[in-house]
Amino acid sequence: MRVAVLGVGLIGGSIGLAARQRLDAEVAGFDADPRNAERGLELGALDRAATSVPEAVAGAEIVICAAPIGALLALVSEALEASADDAVVTDVGSTKEALLAALSGDQGNRFIGGHPLAGAETAGVDNARADLFEGARWYLTPTEHSSGVLYDRLQRAIADLGARPQAIDAETHDRLMATVSHVPHVIANVLVLEAAAAEAEESERLPEVGPSFRDTTRVAGANPSIWGDIFATNREAVAREVDAVSERLREAAQLIRSGDSDGVAAWHNAAREDRRRLFEAELAGGELRELRVSVENRPGTVAEIALALGRARVNIEDMALYPAPDMRTGAVTLWVAGGSEAERAAEVVRGLGYSVTVSE
Amino acid sequence: MRVAVLGVGLIGGSIGLAARQRLDAEVAGFDADPRNAERGLELGALDRAATSVPEAVAGAEIVICAAPIGALLALVSEALEASADDAVVTDVGSTKEALLAALSGDQGNRFIGGHPLAGAETAGVDNARADLFEGARWYLTPTEHSSGVLYDRLQRAIADLGARPQAIDAETHDRLMATVSHVPHVIANVLVLEAAAAEAEESERLPEVGPSFRDTTRVAGANPSIWGDIFATNREAVAREVDAVSERLREAAQLIRSGDSDGVAAWHNAAREDRRRLFEAELAGGELRELRVSVENRPGTVAEIALALGRARVNIEDMALYPAPDMRTGAVTLWVAGGSEAERAAEVVRGLGYSVTVSE
Repeated sequence: MRVAVLGVGLIGGSIGLAARQRLDAEVAGFDADPRNAERGLELGALDRAATSVPEAVAGAEIVICAAPIGALLALVSEALEASADDAVVTDVGSTKEALLAALSGDQGNRFIGGHPLAGAETAGVDNARADLFEGARWYLTPTEHSSGVLYDRLQRAIADLGARPQAIDAETHDRLMATVSHVPHVIANVLVLEAAAAEAEESERLPEVGPSFRDTTRVAGANPSIWGDIFATNREAVAREVDAVSERLREAAQLIRSGDSDGVAAWHNAAREDRRRLFEAELAGGELRELRVSVENRPGTVAEIALALGRARVNIEDMALYPAPDMRTGAVTLWVAGGSEAERAAEVVRGLGYSVTVSE
Repeated sequence: MRVAVLGVGLIGGSIGLAARQRLDAEVAGFDADPRNAERGLELGALDRAATSVPEAVAGAEIVICAAPIGALLALVSEALEASADDAVVTDVGSTKEALLAALSGDQGNRFIGGHPLAGAETAGVDNARADLFEGARWYLTPTEHSSGVLYDRLQRAIADLGARPQAIDAETHDRLMATVSHVPHVIANVLVLEAAAAEAEESERLPEVGPSFRDTTRVAGANPSIWGDIFATNREAVAREVDAVSERLREAAQLIRSGDSDGVAAWHNAAREDRRRLFEAELAGGELRELRVSVENRPGTVAEIALALGRARVNIEDMALYPAPDMRTGAVTLWVAGGSEAERAAEVVRGLGYSVTVSE
């Protein structure tokens, strides 16, 4: 099998490594920055570093466009133009509908959109790994124009890379991504802007921002170049979901203002149950429990705790550090799956002399 | 000085410890559950475990009500009734306006609301520490009816506990708390409910939830009993702020839908700058940098990384673990203050054989 990778970064490089090792493929690579293709060659992700798209796709049965979203339309079009009539062309962008809509019907026969849920878009080829896609969902968005033979070839290759290919229509894909990924970014932005405006209006400075505010706004303003393209190419689904969240917030404000404590409790508990359900599908060990550990905020504290838990074979599902206002003390919050595991973890940490609270 | 603590949990117990050690005070404690007061006595947080409010406040110059919000009005009223005419009564609740409004004007002379920004409301007396309030902001909400002598006594005592007392009007306090703490909880709830509804409408299951969704919804449905009381007692400020966020989301949806990429970029960058400004006030070392480390999701990994960083005297400001879909690999994201410190940290982690990306 001959594979062409257009765009040699973390994703493209990892595809190259996996395709060479697992598919025994011959991989040619092209990148707008020739140093990336050269580096991919050095790292064993490519058999050949091409200096143009036509050179890379010559003879390829599968062409994978792994460029940033903003560059995809031009790259996919060029790849379709340059590649053989029986080559399948795909991409790895995190939005799908706009790209499909922009391709002409004729181009759509050989193009099948793709989106692996693995890797960060910013990371470079130096971080490429052959096992990046191991067990990862990899969405494919065939249309009614897609060639069945080409779809089959592509999905087999993706499964052979170690991923789990899954067909989905582009609109549904973009809506799901809006819900679990794009909308939280919009909310983080909005919450930060509102807090900054509130501070500007008050005579008081905002107090030390709380852990909930830190968590909720962590992704505010993330990677402007990438997020501008995501918002641009998934604008309808994101706007629709943001409107839905806005409407739910309006309803929540009404409920809270009404003072209906039973209604507030029912709403709050529904969120509790839904979060548990959405997240625990992922967890083998049972419900997540939270351990809050009071610590000194100095180098080595996290290590001491994590090391002791590692020795005790406790797996930490998540962790957050919250410095106290004096920046010398603080809390480490750990999440562990399952009640008995959490109690065991608490005992280990208490054994180090820290005070620990366990809660659901 | 004689101090009475009504409610002997983490906060009440820590006040007792600090008052005895730092103010050389004689501390009497009462708790609705007598075992808590007995435990406080054993731990050295109290000189005396009282079996009633009148017994606890007899002779006290300062009475601190440290019960959950829902129990505060009755407790504060009883404390005012039972205490001497020249005793100051305060509380530690995280909302202030509703309690003040519920007290009669006459009661208001000796009551001064308080709210230390330290400690978790759920944790028990076993976690009490004399240094819990060291450097922490401690809001006080005197009114025009408050006695100046009593205010002065209270704020001196709080400063002697190690905290930084700060006067603020109750309405402003509640609005600030709504912004940085209560509204993020409402948003987390709403986002989870919207995602669950979206999943129910789709034929597809939601994909593995992304890191941004995890962070944004982490506090969804937190401690229902506490949050019911907070929403009930700060309902106007929370509802107003939630409405403001809802309106901002509606505007964001319009902006995104319009396809005005310059406008979207300006909005996104403003959020980036505002978050930096809001958070970096807290940080001595400079701008937060993000290190993303690809790891195996097994016990001991976090320890190994944290230990190496601890040895190198790198302070980790924040950390999050993101399991990959296969639950065997994943990413550890670390935040370190300052660009050179982040590069040093990255070198240390690379030295362990992990691949690391550093970004702003």
